[in-house]
Amino acid sequence: MEALEAILTRRSIRKYSEAPVGDEVVTELLRAAMAAPSAGNQQPWHFIVVRDRELLEGIASFHPYGAMARKAAVAIVVCADLKLEQRPGFWVQDCSAATENLLLAAHAKGLGAVWLGIHPRPERIEATRKLFLLPEHVVPLAIVPIGHPAENPGPVDRYDPRRVHADRW
Amino acid sequence: MEALEAILTRRSIRKYSEAPVGDEVVTELLRAAMAAPSAGNQQPWHFIVVRDRELLEGIASFHPYGAMARKAAVAIVVCADLKLEQRPGFWVQDCSAATENLLLAAHAKGLGAVWLGIHPRPERIEATRKLFLLPEHVVPLAIVPIGHPAENPGPVDRYDPRRVHADRW
Repeated sequence: MEALEAILTRRSIRKYSEAPVGDEVVTELLRAAMAAPSAGNQQPWHFIVVRDRELLEGIASFHPYGAMARKAAVAIVVCADLKLEQRPGFWVQDCSAATENLLLAAHAKGLGAVWLGIHPRPERIEATRKLFLLPEHVVPLAIVPIGHPAENPGPVDRYDPRRVHADRW
Repeated sequence: MEALEAILTRRSIRKYSEAPVGDEVVTELLRAAMAAPSAGNQQPWHFIVVRDRELLEGIASFHPYGAMARKAAVAIVVCADLKLEQRPGFWVQDCSAATENLLLAAHAKGLGAVWLGIHPRPERIEATRKLFLLPEHVVPLAIVPIGHPAENPGPVDRYDPRRVHADRW
């Protein structure tokens, strides 16, 4: 799939078939995530690949918009190790760019995925920490359930010229 | 360019030729940026397309890593209007996903670009506010200088298996 097409046709996919998602594909998605730019190239990210059904159920149980995790083939928890930050305060941007790469790569591979926000909600951070045994210096940014799409919402054009300014606000 | 290839071969480009970048291409880049996912689909972003040479010089003058803006054909300031936030606290992630889309689209179009971090550094936020006359409820996340590449650093593989965990930390 062409890069522009992938960017413009990606949608949040919340329904999945039961088809499996292999480890090789997951590695491709993680390679895409880790290709993201980061402040000072600090790459503060860590990724937890979740296949355990009880853990996927756990995501669905605590996250207010996470019910689809029950049916996902796999979910990826995107975290930052704050000890890896050389440019303090930029980890959210770094891990967000990695998450967007992950979503685009999943779409380009014919998979469906959705970005479940964790940070900055304290109760979601705490629940994710407990479920995945994260140490204190590791902060979860997002969880991305992934599977073969069982819905096709089609592309939308979100371009809005009112959001574009020339030279000054 | 294929989506995975675009993701894996994108690099920060800080040297540009004098070739112009047309308005149609800039609109394509902004369409890609606005195709990003956002929390609750709130799309809190605004974009300032900077072509004025004095303003590009202004970016180079205040930003510690922004010297390349002097030679850029155009720069895009990515901001959030906090009044548009329906899910408070998620604007950094939303605007970061939009910025990553912008960088990938630029690369896919044969252009070079680089992510200059503004938020959360107070002095960079203040300088950007003054330069572009941003109202108080608008926060700049990043500035992206763009031009035709005059350097080709080549791809790097940042994949690191030590950053991948199975099911738990």
